Amino acid sequence: MRYDKIKVIAFDADDTLWNNEPYFRNAEHELCRMLAPYGTEEELSERIFGVEMANMPDYGYGAIAFTMSLIESAIKISEGKVTAAEIGEIIEMGRQLLRLDAKPLDGVAETLQALKDTGRYRLVVFTKGELLTQGNKLKRSGLQPCFDKVFVVTDKTEEQYRDLCREMGIVPEELLMVGNSLKSDILPALNIGASTIYIPYEIMWQHEVIDHFEHERMRQVGNIREILSVL
Amino acid sequence: MRYDKIKVIAFDADDTLWNNEPYFRNAEHELCRMLAPYGTEEELSERIFGVEMANMPDYGYGAIAFTMSLIESAIKISEGKVTAAEIGEIIEMGRQLLRLDAKPLDGVAETLQALKDTGRYRLVVFTKGELLTQGNKLKRSGLQPCFDKVFVVTDKTEEQYRDLCREMGIVPEELLMVGNSLKSDILPALNIGASTIYIPYEIMWQHEVIDHFEHERMRQVGNIREILSVL
Repeated sequence: MRYDKIKVIAFDADDTLWNNEPYFRNAEHELCRMLAPYGTEEELSERIFGVEMANMPDYGYGAIAFTMSLIESAIKISEGKVTAAEIGEIIEMGRQLLRLDAKPLDGVAETLQALKDTGRYRLVVFTKGELLTQGNKLKRSGLQPCFDKVFVVTDKTEEQYRDLCREMGIVPEELLMVGNSLKSDILPALNIGASTIYIPYEIMWQHEVIDHFEHERMRQVGNIREILSVL
Repeated sequence: MRYDKIKVIAFDADDTLWNNEPYFRNAEHELCRMLAPYGTEEELSERIFGVEMANMPDYGYGAIAFTMSLIESAIKISEGKVTAAEIGEIIEMGRQLLRLDAKPLDGVAETLQALKDTGRYRLVVFTKGELLTQGNKLKRSGLQPCFDKVFVVTDKTEEQYRDLCREMGIVPEELLMVGNSLKSDILPALNIGASTIYIPYEIMWQHEVIDHFEHERMRQVGNIREILSVL
């Protein structure tokens, strides 16, 4: 990898800059408890995942979308027996997801500041999800001043990585993408010619899981701080 | 107005390029029918609007956000008596809002093409709402090829109009904003120094209503075609 070419470092947000997935899994777990009469947690999770995937073309990614899918799942799985009060509880669980404190993960704030202080890179956020939800979390995280730009996109396909490069006025070889998802952050970025740093996260959403792999333009690190010694 | 300065024409989307508000009002009307035992349509609408406004900081604008607020309204207004089947109906009404055909309003397609053909302007969409919902509608409308860029924003404040100008590399005096909402499309654009064309729409969401007014950098027209004779 020729890191001396890098001009823009793009960071995934959820589970790269702050914790997110555990809260989603916890909400799903709570729903499974509510629906316990209708199946095992494994069976229920599978049905919820099915509803989420079916809704993806209309709802996309995000906490509001997720909450809608939980409500629909509860109605379908209980065959209409879930009560309005229980659906009200799901709405409140969803609201908590929109109000996460988005406290930066260990090492994030100092690493972003150190990268910024080099004066060699423009730093951006490149995240899937809901425009307002992601914007609000970024504000609450206190990290916003570290970033030159924030991109919230509906998906992270090669096309959208190419758009990112165009927007930043760089060629893909000048982009370094940092994230926790091989599927969304690493593979499409590698495919267009960018370099990547992969920081696995403790919990992975089923939708994002892919097999382990290696690539000459990917480095795997255990903590975001290690970016500084790679660059 | 010195229209010879204009380099970028920004178009609002909902109720400027295609019909939107009537479908939202219709969904609300359907909910009021469902909740008829709990109040008059006027009383119910007011309570629904209250829920929408309370959710605005978390949910923002958009059809998914609106559907969530309708579900919450149904639970609150019925004091938990609404059934899961009825909530399922609300989810389906919401899904229809996400799948609107977004057929261009009379004159829109030909006007955009004519403006594009002059070669004098870059055309962009500048709309509030959900990233995926607005993107999907634009695709279905068939109008996407007319636009150089699409901006979906969480709100249309002066700050976001300034960002729009920065993104397009122009000063506000080179921007012409076209839309149906005095509050969102016209006032903030005028306030930063841009020019505007106001095309009132038949139905106005309560949240967007403000008093009639006049301004030297605003022209009011009855149909989007009239832009061509103004420019």
